[in-house]
Amino acid sequence: MNDNPDTPVTVIGLGRMGQALARAFLKAGHPTTVWNRTASKAEQLVAEGARRAPTVADALRAGPLAIVCVTDYRAVHALLGASDVEPAGTTLVNLTSGDSAQARETARWAGQRGARYLDGAIMAVPPAVGTAEAVILHSGPRSDFEAHKPTLDALGTVTHLGADHGLASLYDVAGLAMMWSVLNAWLQGTALLRTAGVDAVTYAPFARRIAAGVAEWLPGYAEQIDSGSFPAEVSDLETDARAMAHLIEESEAVGVNAELPKLIKAMADRSIAAGHGAEQYPVLIEEFARPGDD
Amino acid sequence: MNDNPDTPVTVIGLGRMGQALARAFLKAGHPTTVWNRTASKAEQLVAEGARRAPTVADALRAGPLAIVCVTDYRAVHALLGASDVEPAGTTLVNLTSGDSAQARETARWAGQRGARYLDGAIMAVPPAVGTAEAVILHSGPRSDFEAHKPTLDALGTVTHLGADHGLASLYDVAGLAMMWSVLNAWLQGTALLRTAGVDAVTYAPFARRIAAGVAEWLPGYAEQIDSGSFPAEVSDLETDARAMAHLIEESEAVGVNAELPKLIKAMADRSIAAGHGAEQYPVLIEEFARPGDD
Repeated sequence: MNDNPDTPVTVIGLGRMGQALARAFLKAGHPTTVWNRTASKAEQLVAEGARRAPTVADALRAGPLAIVCVTDYRAVHALLGASDVEPAGTTLVNLTSGDSAQARETARWAGQRGARYLDGAIMAVPPAVGTAEAVILHSGPRSDFEAHKPTLDALGTVTHLGADHGLASLYDVAGLAMMWSVLNAWLQGTALLRTAGVDAVTYAPFARRIAAGVAEWLPGYAEQIDSGSFPAEVSDLETDARAMAHLIEESEAVGVNAELPKLIKAMADRSIAAGHGAEQYPVLIEEFARPGDD
Repeated sequence: MNDNPDTPVTVIGLGRMGQALARAFLKAGHPTTVWNRTASKAEQLVAEGARRAPTVADALRAGPLAIVCVTDYRAVHALLGASDVEPAGTTLVNLTSGDSAQARETARWAGQRGARYLDGAIMAVPPAVGTAEAVILHSGPRSDFEAHKPTLDALGTVTHLGADHGLASLYDVAGLAMMWSVLNAWLQGTALLRTAGVDAVTYAPFARRIAAGVAEWLPGYAEQIDSGSFPAEVSDLETDARAMAHLIEESEAVGVNAELPKLIKAMADRSIAAGHGAEQYPVLIEEFARPGDD
């Protein structure tokens, strides 16, 4: 295990995120080699102790672990596919944004060249990198993750999701969907309450409490999905749909946006039309799991 | 203050929720008078110690506090507007589902008849009534709420939102919007992860953590809304929109529903088109606060 600050690490790509990654390794004491297409972006990091590699090939020769964080997967393949690059023996940790299919394809591509490969996703903004608040997801062979975890720990809270290289991308977008959904529901409520003169700061603690409370239901509701059985232990979908109609009517009556309420009801209505009105909310997985009408 | 289990209370309407309300008062030791259009629904409660009133007028004469929980506001007006009913001197707590305009109108109507009036909403399913888990929202004059809070406490966690009688309905639908949004985002993520063979129980703790974490941001984000200033301290909307495109693409690529992801991006795109791309997410309040294109 490389639980040693002397373990060298390479960072390919020095956009805002790549710079934050390199800086976190430097702060943890790792000899850090960096490369960027526009070399000037490395200057500040060099002043902080990084070594600037003249080529990607040279950067990869600096050590056993290379983090890649560039614009997209096309750039990953262009850089690492150059004729002088020899990735064999290197563990590539690709934190570039992309989808699960690209991650799996890149894993195959790296494997054919003799490289070890982990795909990853950064659930944080650049200033949070290097703190526990930055959650960094990894997927690929667990042994490759474990071998480099002591080094990767410098980046934040690093987790391994499973051997399927597509998992990091999937968890990433799933988590973002949750983030935007909580924010949008809060905005819907804030808009509703502002029509009664309630300011956003007054309403926010209520929204926070509901979101945190409903979050606690998820593990139990998940059991219904895995068992494929949705008894209405707490409420049934028909009852929910009536309350959804109230949400739409109230939104329209006070003149705020009703698109989110209408989407909520449309999904429930489809499930009811499919015969699930007397079942519990998680039965909606059947609607979410298939392409919609749009 | 009626902090005395001897304080009599009346419950009008004995659907599943009304029965749960009456039972909670009985358990707390209050002399409880009940009325329901279909008298047979009172039988079990009478066996538990309730008194069945022959008419609404008689039920209201039983004490200073009457809880109303019927089908809709039309039923409220039909029952309490009967010629023999004299609501003067009674405090009516209307827990019937309705919208903010109906609540305010019913408050005026009650005031004209000399009754005190609180509007309320029950954020719980019937089996939870009588436990701390049942949150019951009230709006109307604070003094009327405080006068009866010791009795209302038998129902669960009772809160007062403000003097505007419309607040209980608004908070109720806002809270429901949050509930369904957290559930839908979790279903979206569960659907995505199941395409990679990850079961719902494995994914749920991740979704729970994200939802609870984002909930913590709301009070701070609310300050941006109240100040009307949205500096991109953490992220800007353009960056968010690129990640939203990933969510849509991933959903479509693996064959799950993309309607929620598309609505999320459509709202952001409109705000960007209005010139807010370099600002932070809460600037979307401007989109949520006005009727949509649909």
